[in-house]
Formats: sequence, structure tokens, C-alpha cells
Amino acid sequence: MNPLLRFSFGASLGRVVLRPGEDPFALYEPLQTEAHRWYLAEGDGSAGFGWADLPLRSCDDVLEAAGWLRSFEAVVQVGIGGSALGNLMLHQALLGDTVNERGPLRFYLADNPDPAKVREIWDRVKDRRTALVGVSKSGSTAETTSQFLWFKEQMECRIDGPVGDRILLVTDPAEGVFRAYVNQTGCRSLPIPSDVGGRYSVLSPSGLLSAAALGVDVEALLCGAREMRSFLRGCSDRRINPALRLAALHRYHERQGRPMAVFFPYSSRLERFAEWYAQLWAESLGKGGQGTTPIRALGAIDQHSQVQLYVDGPDDKFATFLHVGGEEDLLLPQVVDEPLRGLSYLGGRGLGEMLSREARATAAALASRGRPLVWIDMERLDARSLGQLVYFYEVLTAMVGRMMDLNPFDQPGVEQGKRYTYGLMGRKGFEEHAVEAQEWFARIDGETLEGPLGEDAEVTE
Amino acid sequence: MNPLLRFSFGASLGRVVLRPGEDPFALYEPLQTEAHRWYLAEGDGSAGFGWADLPLRSCDDVLEAAGWLRSFEAVVQVGIGGSALGNLMLHQALLGDTVNERGPLRFYLADNPDPAKVREIWDRVKDRRTALVGVSKSGSTAETTSQFLWFKEQMECRIDGPVGDRILLVTDPAEGVFRAYVNQTGCRSLPIPSDVGGRYSVLSPSGLLSAAALGVDVEALLCGAREMRSFLRGCSDRRINPALRLAALHRYHERQGRPMAVFFPYSSRLERFAEWYAQLWAESLGKGGQGTTPIRALGAIDQHSQVQLYVDGPDDKFATFLHVGGEEDLLLPQVVDEPLRGLSYLGGRGLGEMLSREARATAAALASRGRPLVWIDMERLDARSLGQLVYFYEVLTAMVGRMMDLNPFDQPGVEQGKRYTYGLMGRKGFEEHAVEAQEWFARIDGETLEGPLGEDAEVTE
Repeated sequence: MNPLLRFSFGASLGRVVLRPGEDPFALYEPLQTEAHRWYLAEGDGSAGFGWADLPLRSCDDVLEAAGWLRSFEAVVQVGIGGSALGNLMLHQALLGDTVNERGPLRFYLADNPDPAKVREIWDRVKDRRTALVGVSKSGSTAETTSQFLWFKEQMECRIDGPVGDRILLVTDPAEGVFRAYVNQTGCRSLPIPSDVGGRYSVLSPSGLLSAAALGVDVEALLCGAREMRSFLRGCSDRRINPALRLAALHRYHERQGRPMAVFFPYSSRLERFAEWYAQLWAESLGKGGQGTTPIRALGAIDQHSQVQLYVDGPDDKFATFLHVGGEEDLLLPQVVDEPLRGLSYLGGRGLGEMLSREARATAAALASRGRPLVWIDMERLDARSLGQLVYFYEVLTAMVGRMMDLNPFDQPGVEQGKRYTYGLMGRKGFEEHAVEAQEWFARIDGETLEGPLGEDAEVTE
Repeated sequence: MNPLLRFSFGASLGRVVLRPGEDPFALYEPLQTEAHRWYLAEGDGSAGFGWADLPLRSCDDVLEAAGWLRSFEAVVQVGIGGSALGNLMLHQALLGDTVNERGPLRFYLADNPDPAKVREIWDRVKDRRTALVGVSKSGSTAETTSQFLWFKEQMECRIDGPVGDRILLVTDPAEGVFRAYVNQTGCRSLPIPSDVGGRYSVLSPSGLLSAAALGVDVEALLCGAREMRSFLRGCSDRRINPALRLAALHRYHERQGRPMAVFFPYSSRLERFAEWYAQLWAESLGKGGQGTTPIRALGAIDQHSQVQLYVDGPDDKFATFLHVGGEEDLLLPQVVDEPLRGLSYLGGRGLGEMLSREARATAAALASRGRPLVWIDMERLDARSLGQLVYFYEVLTAMVGRMMDLNPFDQPGVEQGKRYTYGLMGRKGFEEHAVEAQEWFARIDGETLEGPLGEDAEVTE
């Protein structure tokens, strides 16, 4: 009967000194209430709210396709943004970093149209029996479709039989180039429901397929998400619903002049979770001149990188510590003799115990400086608890957006860059954008300085 | 005779509208001049300036030790912060992400006292002939020495003969527990010069050893660093020295209310470089209530994650785009027929060409919104050009710190957290700190909310 997640808000206001009974959130009460009503009403039917019911969807199709993928020796998945970050997050959190060195199935995510990375992936798979998975909601994402074309052609040159037998596309059920390809070739496919945007798609086949193929218990993941869904829907009291509480805090700190939201998990397996959160947060909430910038940290590593700044730099951040329990500890040997006696305080302690105390020590150091933070305890890291955490952050992000009076499901600010790219790539209909992009770039490039010369440069001194 | 690095400043001021001849940097001219004088004077003898001459140091000892490491099947390196980030940066940039799947020598960096990660590493190496490398300047870093003790004990249980034959420590030449261990056991060691701090140590044996063992041309890396050193020392004109120019810009934007410094490389091989930069920047400059927060981005991936916020959120960032050339391109096939005809604009183009144009398009989109940025062109990514870039950022960071009138080589803000950790771990002499940390943590923990219950929780709906 333990909760898997527990939220501590005691230092969340930072340096504010309150009189007894004073509530800095009185201002936000109507917004919290309205945000919860809106969540219960499925966003009043607004486009992009389909993520909220993904935990109720059957994953039988995912499990069947995952079984098929496991009949290969390797998988290359092409995808970017919401079609990649969730995959990497699930794999690292639940399978670790070395899954390719251990398991029978090798998995490579071609998430960037970078020739060096693409060539490196191809070199790893070209001599193996390989499946190609393409993930793009729209089916037109330039970075993804280009890599799809490239890998497909390489495979066609090396295999007998139709390449379509090795392709699976995860895309919109009805629209786009990928769906047309499925319809014409009859290759395998899975749907990303139409009303689910990329950054909210990790609990759809977009995020689940590769995880299931590599051995993640996706049913437990969805079960955790369902638990969190029931809990957050059922709890409309803004004082005891942690998502409503945290949403108000984020809004409060943005207004207090703290433009950064640090996410600081204490587990190497949650480094990619911080990346996933950063996309969800930035793309949902950074619009119309508003929005806090997500900062990805990792404990204990960033104690030796970012904590100096967090403790002693400007008071411009609101931090979320995520502490993870439940891992079997590794005990350190007793240290008695020289020359290592200076380390005797470590003897008999555990590595996990140390990590845990470092998290407390760092949070205490921030609190003692009046820096605001919340603390989340995760009873253990497994598929079910991760499902809870994922769904909690999706609801939190959506509700913060609602409280900011913006649409957390669109991304209007990326359109100009896309048009400029199409223009510079010579796509028909985008000629004017090419001219505009070149004019802007000429201004950037207008004033240059050069570093040391290459080739014949002499190194003196 | 091409320069390997080229700096474009044309959009660096953002939305500022200047009258002809107006120079927003007039204010910074005396500071720039003084910072350059200080750099030439080796920091006026201040502690921690030893990094500046590392490129002049012979790396014969590193090459010899690297040869010895290559006689093993696997290497576990324990280290954190400046004893880890530089290693990962060099490996990824110059060898790619899959070096463990390809090469004869497996390398694992135990950079976090996280039991799950440590156990995963041990499982990969326990049946191999493995060397243990410990990297800690002070020889007392708790996260590093604890993992050293743990791995050493595991190895002692599994091998015949003295474990010291498989240990190499990289540490201060004279002081600390690691040095005492070297002196007593006679195991191998390499020095981190006394006047070099962790985050400035990548061009010392701390960063070079593992890179050399895995096949990085560390002599070319140091050659590039020497070239940049000569160039930046020889060029005292603040108008043509790009480090002086960029230092003033960073200071200017901090004063203009832009608290974030985005580093946005367009190469998957520079993701870890952004992490390395983030430590250098944050720990050197975040102190006394000053300092901008480094933001690690990656092109093109963060176009689908952070660019919405950068373009359409608050105008609170100063961005550095790093464009990398020289990679052999991968050509896309012509697309003529349905159903893929919607992708015909990609036919005959290259993946690298697309990545390059996306970088331009994204920079142009930011510039068109009046967001300030600089653009660095890297002719190609190899050991020599990376050596130039590393040394450039070290000098830049140090000079920005000098212009901020702070010491860029200390980290006073992390001491309290360390004392709290020692206290919570029961180390003698830190009892009062334990009490203080517990008091602060009790305040954090004072007000809690619980998520959905685990174990018997029922999923309704």
C-alpha cells in the first residue's frame, strides 16, 4: 500500500517569508480549478488532447509487432523529436545503456540527418538481418523521411526480395506520405492516433514499439499511467492534487522572475527522461513570449558541473529533485589500513546510500540558500512507476499551459524555420522563403573573424 | 591555408538598433584589454592557471600508458565532473558512439555512484581482463574513491596476483589519497599538474589517457590547442581576437537581461562537447550572484524540442551556433513515383547538405525574430580542429570570468553540499553539518502529497 510517488513541497517557495496562514497561491486558485475542469473535459475538445486517454488503449498491436521485430538481428528506427526522445527514455530507464552489447536484438535510433551518425549506424547493421522502422506522425518530417529514403535504398541494394517485408511505419492512421506508402506497398504499420502530437506520443505505438521489442513491460508501463490518470482525474482538491499544486508553483516562479525550470533526477537511468521532459516542457509552454526554459540536470554528476551555479549564481531557477529508491545497494569494503585510511568513513556504507544522501545534501544546500525546490520520491524505478511519472508530467505540462492561457499542443514557432529549410532545399513553392532565409543569413555572416590558419599554419613558441 | 574555425558576429546583438558608428562595446574595451593582458600574464600567477600551458606539455607518458591499457580487454574508469566529461566528449567527437561495439578495447566510465549503473558496468567487464583507472585531482572525491574501492574489491575477488598490476591512477603529483596509494603500492600513475583544476584538465592526462587508448590522435589534438594558444596570445586587438569579441558579447547579453547562453552544435558528435562546455561555463562563472546558465542544445534534434521556445518564448538567451563541415555526404535517391513523390524535393540532395541548411534556416529564423546569436564554422571535425575549439572555449571562459571580476578557477559554492554529504555519511568532524543538513531537509520534507498508491491500488474506469 505504498505510493510509488511522493511529493514534498516544503522548500518550494524559496526565499519568500510568509506570515502564518498566508497563501501565495490564492491568486492561482481559480486558475487551478479551471485547469482541472478543462482536463476532466478532455480539453473542451481541443485538438491534440488524445494523449490523455492513451493509457486506456490496448497495446496488443504493439506486442504483436514487437514479436515480429524480434525475428530480426537489428532494427534501425528513423525518427526525431517526439518520435525518438521517448524511445531513448524508456530504453535507458528500464533496460540500461548497454542493451546493444547484451541482448540478441540490436537497436539504433537514426534521430539526426548527420552523415557521420548515419554512416556509423549503417556500418553496424549492414551485415545483419535488419528491419527499418519509420516513425513520423505527419509522415513528412524532412529529417525522418530523408533518412528513411537513404536506409531503404541501402537495404534494397543488399537484400533479396522486397524491402517492404522489412519495413514498419508508425504514422497517422489516415494521412501523409508514410500512410500512402503503407497503403500502396502493404508493409506493416502502427497508428499514432490523429489527436496525439509527437511530444505527447510516448504511450502510443510511437514510443512503445521499440521498447516492447527490446523487452520493456509496456503493459506495466500503461498500468502505471492508468493509475496516475485515475488519481489525477479523481482528485479535484487543489490542495492535495500534486499536479495542481506543482502547476501553480511553476506559474508562480515564472512570475517571480525565475525563467528556468531545473529537472534534477538522481539516477543515471533518468538522464534521457530529463531530455524527454525538456521537449515536452519547452515546445508546449514556450510561446507568445512566455515560458520557462527546462534545464536538464543529473545527480550526482551535475553536483560537479552545475550546482556551483545553482547555489551561488543568480536566484533564477525553480528546481525539481527526483530521488529514486529501491535499487539493491552495493556495499563498500571496510578500509582500515594506510594509505587508504582517509576513506574509512566510506567503509560499510553503500553506493546507493551515498547517492541518496548526496541528493539530500544538495537539496539542503540549495534550501539553505533560499533557492526554491520541490522533491519527488520515487519508491523504485520500474515500468509501472515510470508510467506514473510520465503521465504525471504530461498532465502537469498541459495544465501549466492552460493556466498560462496558451495552447500546449501546438508549436507555431517552428514553422518559419521549416519553411526556410524547404526553401534552402529547393522545394517548389518555397522560393520566397529561400530568398528571405538567405537575406537573414547574410546578415549573420556579414561580419566575420578567422581563427588560426589550418594546413600550413606554423606553431611557434 | 584555410582557417579551421571562423566566427560570424553579424546577428550577435539581437534586436538592438544602433546608429551608424555606435559601438555598444565601448564600455567593455578597457575590460577586454585588461582580460587579455591578464591572460598573457598567466593570470598574474593566480592559482589554477596551469591549463593555459597544457598544450605545450609532452604527451609521451600518456602514449606509453595508453599502450599498456590496450593490452587489456576492457577498462573501467572511475571519475566524475572534470574527470569524466572531457573523456566522453573526446570519445564521441572523434570515435563516435559505438566504439565499444567495434574496437578490441571496451571502455566504461563509472561517473556516478549509482548502483544500477555500476552493476551494469561490472556485468560487462567481470569476465574480461580489465584495467581500473581512477581519475581524481584531489584523490578524495567521494563519488570516485567509493567506486574505486568497490571495483578494486570485486577485482581482488576474481583475479590471481596483485590487483595493483591492473590499476592506474591519474591524480595530483604530490598530494592526496590516490597519490599515497601509488607511492605505497607502486602502481602506475599519471599526473594532473597541481595548478590545473578538474574542469580545465581535458588536455592533461585526465582527459587524454582514455582517448589515446581508444585511438584518438592526442598529438593532433594538442597541436590544434597550441595553434589556438599562439593565435589568441598573439592577437591583442580586441576587434579581431574572436575570444575577446565573444567575451564582451556574453557580458553584454548578461547585462541586457539574458541569463542563458545556448550552445547549439549541429553534429551528433558534439552532444557531449556541449556537456563539457556546460561544466566549464557554469562552474567557472556562476558565483557571487552572477553568471549565465549554459544551455546544451543539439542540431537538428532540438529544432524538434527547444527551438519553439527559443523563437517564440522570452527573449532571454544568447545563442552560439556551431556548424561543422567536411563530412563526406550521403546522397539521397531520386524520388519520382507515387506514393513517395511528395518527397521528390529531397532527391539527389545530401543528408549533410540538409543538416547544414537546417542550421542556416534555424539561425535565420532566430535572427528574423531579433534573437541574438553568433555563428561558428568549423571547417571539419577532427582532433586538430577539436583541439582548437577546446582551447578557444577555455580561454573564452577564463576571460569572461576576468571581465566579471571573479575567480574563474574556484568553486566555493559546492563546498556546503560536500560538507552536508560528509556529515550525512557519518564522517568524523562533520557532525554539526549532518545536523544542519537534516534540519534543512526536514523543512523540504515538511509538507508532502502522495501519488496513487502502489501494490494493491485498483485501477478503475
